[in-house]
Amino acid sequence: MCEAAAGFMTEYYEGLRARRVMPEVSSAELRGLVVEPLPRGGMEFDALLGVVRDVIVQNSRHNGHPRFFGYVASPGTAVSAVGEMLTATLNANVTSWRSSPAAAEIERVVVQWLKEMLGYPESALGLFVSGGSMANFSALAAARAAKGPADVSQAGMGASGRRMRVYVSEETHYSSRKAAGLLGIGEANVVVVRTDGRGRMDVEDLQRVVRLDEEAGALPLCVVGSAGTVSTGAFDPLAEIGEVARAHNLWFHVDGAYGGFAALAPSARGLFRGIEAADSVTLDPHKWAYLPTGVGCVLYRDGMWARKAFAHDADYTRVMGQGQDESFAFWDYGPELSRRFRALGLWLLLKHVGAEALGAAIEQNMACARYVERLVGGSDDLEMLAPVGLSVFCFRYAPPGYSGDLDELNERVLVELQRDGSSYLSNARVGGRFALRGCVLNYRTTERDMEVMVEDVRRVGRGLAGEA
Amino acid sequence: MCEAAAGFMTEYYEGLRARRVMPEVSSAELRGLVVEPLPRGGMEFDALLGVVRDVIVQNSRHNGHPRFFGYVASPGTAVSAVGEMLTATLNANVTSWRSSPAAAEIERVVVQWLKEMLGYPESALGLFVSGGSMANFSALAAARAAKGPADVSQAGMGASGRRMRVYVSEETHYSSRKAAGLLGIGEANVVVVRTDGRGRMDVEDLQRVVRLDEEAGALPLCVVGSAGTVSTGAFDPLAEIGEVARAHNLWFHVDGAYGGFAALAPSARGLFRGIEAADSVTLDPHKWAYLPTGVGCVLYRDGMWARKAFAHDADYTRVMGQGQDESFAFWDYGPELSRRFRALGLWLLLKHVGAEALGAAIEQNMACARYVERLVGGSDDLEMLAPVGLSVFCFRYAPPGYSGDLDELNERVLVELQRDGSSYLSNARVGGRFALRGCVLNYRTTERDMEVMVEDVRRVGRGLAGEA
Repeated sequence: MCEAAAGFMTEYYEGLRARRVMPEVSSAELRGLVVEPLPRGGMEFDALLGVVRDVIVQNSRHNGHPRFFGYVASPGTAVSAVGEMLTATLNANVTSWRSSPAAAEIERVVVQWLKEMLGYPESALGLFVSGGSMANFSALAAARAAKGPADVSQAGMGASGRRMRVYVSEETHYSSRKAAGLLGIGEANVVVVRTDGRGRMDVEDLQRVVRLDEEAGALPLCVVGSAGTVSTGAFDPLAEIGEVARAHNLWFHVDGAYGGFAALAPSARGLFRGIEAADSVTLDPHKWAYLPTGVGCVLYRDGMWARKAFAHDADYTRVMGQGQDESFAFWDYGPELSRRFRALGLWLLLKHVGAEALGAAIEQNMACARYVERLVGGSDDLEMLAPVGLSVFCFRYAPPGYSGDLDELNERVLVELQRDGSSYLSNARVGGRFALRGCVLNYRTTERDMEVMVEDVRRVGRGLAGEA
Repeated sequence: MCEAAAGFMTEYYEGLRARRVMPEVSSAELRGLVVEPLPRGGMEFDALLGVVRDVIVQNSRHNGHPRFFGYVASPGTAVSAVGEMLTATLNANVTSWRSSPAAAEIERVVVQWLKEMLGYPESALGLFVSGGSMANFSALAAARAAKGPADVSQAGMGASGRRMRVYVSEETHYSSRKAAGLLGIGEANVVVVRTDGRGRMDVEDLQRVVRLDEEAGALPLCVVGSAGTVSTGAFDPLAEIGEVARAHNLWFHVDGAYGGFAALAPSARGLFRGIEAADSVTLDPHKWAYLPTGVGCVLYRDGMWARKAFAHDADYTRVMGQGQDESFAFWDYGPELSRRFRALGLWLLLKHVGAEALGAAIEQNMACARYVERLVGGSDDLEMLAPVGLSVFCFRYAPPGYSGDLDELNERVLVELQRDGSSYLSNARVGGRFALRGCVLNYRTTERDMEVMVEDVRRVGRGLAGEA
């Protein structure tokens, strides 16, 4: 079983570059291949692996393909894939120290490394969650506990009296807004702060809207800074936001889901100035640490507030007969009880390749994005729509003399490019314009891939512009 | 790399029974083995695997050990461990259909199987989450959206006016209470309904407390029934609870995190009568489907309410150029955006062994728990504290003529038994008394293991009672 699966893995990675990024298939076609009643009997693993190979893998988008530039997607690595098998074999359930002594300590060590990477206080507490959305949710829950007017976990948000307000920028990831809705703060109490010409939060505007809320009797609760926005890779001025937060008693959360690991890249290190003052930080190892989907991380400057948001007592979670270090429970600091041993994958990767190699790969990703800027700058049918931020590039196809609607043309280019299968971009709206957007997040990607991608856009674009 | 890891897996499973269930180690000792600064350089995989083997695995609790009876813990299976490697290799991110066509369809198929297993409506919608806590959270978020007086996601819970009330029993898992706290309903608005002599929700008491709330002007929102409680395996009278829910316009949620898969066991099937009327159901494949930690599932009778709780729009999540089936997005129905391909593990297991073999293993687990009842019944130094429910047994050590405090003695027995390493139980409070509690949830466990466990308790107990 293992051998066959290992063979599949080798074959998959070796053949990745030759695959179409996106399959050509409809939901109805796929259903025809996989729908069946609950199987009563079993089947041999080898036959099953054949179905995985021929049906599932064949009809998947390949996020590890060197020209998959959509969204913020990790490529995965072989050591992580093997690591997942080790994780599932051991099957630790990292609810608490006593449930998984070694896994709990490894999680602490890896969290310590992440703090070291960011220059974040050693006394901070952190834990792994399923991804950035849950990390932002957890941070906002801690903010609500720290800055709310009452014990809202107990009494409910109806008892709080004042409207709590959360400040994000136009470019902040929507998961913070979603968290505000779920936590009963209300999406309508998420205040959108303006951005400057480079997509960064405008700190003067932040100050203005916070003051307005104070005057109106609302309760300014939390500001979310982005360490790399999804649309353009913009990096908010963290130190300045932190000062406003301190002056107005706001919880300061930094969403570094995309950009956090850029702290390992010497050229990006300076952007992180001020993060050490954040009350909480979101990191996503399943983004720029290249880990497979399912690993996010939240850091709390002072774990006490997370404890206030999440802790509980029940007989079956009571810890008996152990010292203080051994009575630590992760469920007191996050939304989950059962938890996968998510730290093992990052531990394996950092031990196997080391932080310097990871930082170098991140530098290379950023260089690839800047190379697109040069390719576009040297052409007469493409134009950049935003400066490259971290490893994100935004541009559009704009052939000379084209009289149609460029937004409409580029939306068609995007859909057609995705169907074409050689390169995959996603979209963003930049300054009101529809952008072809890519994010380089794969250690396999080379400058040659960037050339191919630009040529793919041009080829697809020419076909569509000619039609119009 | 693969070969070495596969060798480790085989060796681990083969040696599992011979291991101590629980390691003897302190936090300080473990820290001495694993604490180090962020590694700058890398190291060979084989050496790294040695650290996994000698440090991590050696200092872990072994949840797959046939005499690990603590909490509600899955043992994992080889096919799932290999499946995790396949999952990470493909690295699908199951945010939406377009992001992972095959993974999305496989998730739909597996959810369909779960509905078939429960006799739940075919039109229901479901998705995988990280575990039971997130499933209960998601269900309660949908309940809030469906039964709340206003659009609370938008306006915030402060705008709702009336206190929303959630009904649980004394035995309901605390994650529903935690969810109420997080969602801004408030833990103080979770009303505890009495249980009958067998730990089942008392439906008359439910009716009584709902009426009291109605008279007081509060808003009865949701009742949570348990399809298998953690403490004693009690199964709430679902059909009767459903009738009260209908009469009072309550959302009816069934928490089947532990017991849900018992629907595959013919002897337990009858308990599920009435589940078809539930508005939402929690299942935990990482419990009684034996999958490794990290796979929960929530079913919604009408997906529209989950959509109201979770849906949002943003440019980078806009779906373009696709039909309706292909524009489906999981993020509209749950708390996460990035999502692991969690369905693959359950698909592989059900295809590989079939539902009948899984049902037979569940029957065998329940038979092992009932066997404890017989062993205890035939002894003069042990007594049952609750009837066996599903695969949970609760008993205590009560040597004839012992004049000390039996609660205190059994707490010491529990701690000492865990240290002893041959069998692992956890605890529960049953009728005010401290119980040694076990849950059989491992297809490796035999009746002989139950005999060994009972002898272990006796051996440890004799030592402690003699001391006193």
